[in-house]
Parts: sequence; structure tokens; C-alpha cells
Amino acid sequence: MNTKPFLDTVLSPSLLNLYDISDSIVVIIDVFRATSTIATALYNGAAKVIPVESVMECIETGKKLNAITAGERDGKIIEGLQHGNSPAEYPREFIHGKTLVLTTTNGTRLLHMALERGASEIVAGSFSNLSAIQSHLKETRKNVILACSAWKNRINLEDTLFAGSVISGIKENFTIHCDSSLMAEEMYRHHKADMPCFIRKTNHWHRLASYGFEKDLEYCILPDTANVLPVYRDGALIVE
Amino acid sequence: MNTKPFLDTVLSPSLLNLYDISDSIVVIIDVFRATSTIATALYNGAAKVIPVESVMECIETGKKLNAITAGERDGKIIEGLQHGNSPAEYPREFIHGKTLVLTTTNGTRLLHMALERGASEIVAGSFSNLSAIQSHLKETRKNVILACSAWKNRINLEDTLFAGSVISGIKENFTIHCDSSLMAEEMYRHHKADMPCFIRKTNHWHRLASYGFEKDLEYCILPDTANVLPVYRDGALIVE
Repeated sequence: MNTKPFLDTVLSPSLLNLYDISDSIVVIIDVFRATSTIATALYNGAAKVIPVESVMECIETGKKLNAITAGERDGKIIEGLQHGNSPAEYPREFIHGKTLVLTTTNGTRLLHMALERGASEIVAGSFSNLSAIQSHLKETRKNVILACSAWKNRINLEDTLFAGSVISGIKENFTIHCDSSLMAEEMYRHHKADMPCFIRKTNHWHRLASYGFEKDLEYCILPDTANVLPVYRDGALIVE
Repeated sequence: MNTKPFLDTVLSPSLLNLYDISDSIVVIIDVFRATSTIATALYNGAAKVIPVESVMECIETGKKLNAITAGERDGKIIEGLQHGNSPAEYPREFIHGKTLVLTTTNGTRLLHMALERGASEIVAGSFSNLSAIQSHLKETRKNVILACSAWKNRINLEDTLFAGSVISGIKENFTIHCDSSLMAEEMYRHHKADMPCFIRKTNHWHRLASYGFEKDLEYCILPDTANVLPVYRDGALIVE
């Protein structure tokens, strides 16, 4: 009898509705840069990160909670918010003990989709907290959806590679009947050794590097730089 | 100045609406097995293949035109139709000069989506007619969408691999800013030498092989076995 839980990879938010996620842990993946920023802020002692969908909601929530407002649209900082979506903006001396309200193009939107579709648990994953994600999924032994934020629903390589890196470490613990998972793991296996080079071929790299974010992107593909488990509880991502 | 046309790969019909296809040639890809069957039937002399969405339409059109009705749902032959969706069912001595009315789970549906969204031209691609597709795209010098039929909108490996095989032969002629294309080509490059083995890992293989279609699937990954260009004109796929 096969008692291993199932693992599926969903390469675009547009495909999430094809899956019943009600009994699954959903890992929200937005490597460039929302989930890398979330892990980094929490690792550096942020009390919580509140993901919101709109800029207006970000400003209002920030005011109400006396929290830091941050976000991006199309990779750029938004007028009216205090900070951007760069992990480098949230060192310990700045973020410790504070609440961050964050809105981004792809990642925060996907998180709310997963919430609406009744995910049993939502966590935020990135290379920054790869091991924490892997350990949690292995220990919890529930079905898993690796949900990539993509770019405006178009599949991207960096989120796929991260899904592959998760799979490569935990695949023995899961039943995987999913061609997207197979591809993600293959892509990761072929490129884990040349990641800094390979990632420069992605669409997202070209988009963000042109805004001067190379250092951010290089940071975002390093494993375990902020190895915490951001779990979504009562409207915010926290470390339990 | 860059005057090369664009090439994008769309790994699931659910993602087609993200692209403006009105000035593009759309290559419909359904390796297991609709587009392989279409190429084979036309190569063996079928007058035309009429792709229809429903079984009822298939039966009615078949009656009206005194044509052969064929199709599958969930990989299985449909009651009320004369034939299935297997290339092996359409040798020259049977299909020559005849019209085939075909309805399938994924491929024929995607073709109608492309039609509704105003594709500038629609052709059907599979390993069976790889070279004909590559030559046509190179010569025509228009934007290209490689559109994978997937399985009920879930991304599959065999259609992705075919997209990669097309790209590997024509990429110098196109501007490719598309992570899905990058992945497809990488997957093809890594597996072109062990395709018969690798393809056995796919979801679709497990599904169809359990119905006894191994020989069909082995045929469907051979290049250029039916090297014609099926073009959609006035409601039917024909060879011009």
C-alpha cells in the first residue's frame, strides 16, 4: 500500500484551479523577490509580514498598525510606500520587532488565491529558506502543492528551479505523478552547479537587472541565507 | 536592429489567453496522440482531417460528408465513433482519399481555442512531422506560438519535449524571450538521446500504456515518420 502523500508542482497561478488544494500544504514561491524578502525580513526578526493585494490596502494597513509599508509593481518601487521588495532593505537593525505590510505583482496575489481556494496550510518558500521548507514538508507528511508565482501568469524559470530544488531533497517521501515536478527537478539537477550563470538567461533577470537589482537576484538564489519557516496565520506570515 | 520574429511556447491551453496570437502562426501540439494521428493520416493520403469538439458533432459531420468518424475521451475509444485516435489505424490502404472527422480530449479543443483567438495561421505539429514544421516556420518568418495541448490543462512532458525539438532546430531564426521555451529546449537537449526511455516517466505514458497503447507511443516520438505540413483551412487540416 502506498501511503506517501502526493506532491504536485503548479508552474503558474493560472493553473492552480486545476488542483484540489483543500488538504494540501501550499508553498508559495516567488524567488525574484517576494518570498525571498519575506524569509529575510522574518529571519532578521520582523514580528510579521502582512501580504496585501493592493497599494491602497498596503498604505491603510500600514497606517492602522504603525507598520512599514513596502512593495513593487512590475519590479519597481511604488509611490506612496516606504520601501521596495528587496531583501537587502530589511537588515536586522532596521526590521527587528517591526511589522512589514507588503504588496507585490505576483507573489502576494498567489498567496491570496491559495487562501481563497482553501489551502490547508500556506508557507512561503525561496532558496533563502530551502532547508526549512524541505524539513517542514518531510515532517508534516501531508499533500504538497509547490505553487510558483510566475510573471503575470507566464511560467518562469527561477520559481521552477526552486520547486525542483525542494523536490530533489524530499522526493523519496512523496508520491509524484506530475510532469511539471519531473521537469522542475530535472532543470534544477542540470543547473544547480551553474545557477548564478544560468539564472542570467531568465526573462526576469533581464527585467530586474535593467532596474539595477543584480545583487538582489544573486542573493535570492543562495540557499539557506534566511532559514526560517514563514507560515500564514490569521492574515500574516510569521515564524512560529 | 532586431528583425527576427518572436517565438513563444505555451505549455498549457490555460495560458494561451496571455498571448496575442493574432499575428502568429500557432503550432498545435498533441504528441500523444492527436497531432501525430493527423500527420499520419494526411501523409497516408487522407483528403482532409476535420477536427471537431464534441462527439455529437463528430457523428453528424461524419454522416453528412460520408466520412470516417474517430476520436477518444480520456485516451479511450468512444462509443458511436468508428475509429480511435491511434496513428496505426490510418495506413494508406485504408485512409487514402478519405475524410477523417476527429475529436479528442485535448488537441482538437486547443485548435478551436486558437481559432477563436484569431491565430493568423494554424498548423498541427508532432515528432511525426518535425522537419516539415521547422522548415515552414523558418521560411515563413512570422511570429510563432508553440501551443501544447497538455492533459486537461495540466502541463505534460511529451508536448514540451516536442516544442523543445522544434526550437532546437530553428532558434537562430527567432527572438526568444520566454522561459518556457528555454526549459523546453533544455529538456529536449538533455533527453533527445534517451527519449524512448525518458518518455516512460511521463504521466501520459502511464495513463495510455495501461490501455495497451505502448506501440502507439513509441511511434509518436519518432521524428519525420509522416513529414507533411497539416494546415488548417476552411474548417479542415489539409496538406496544400
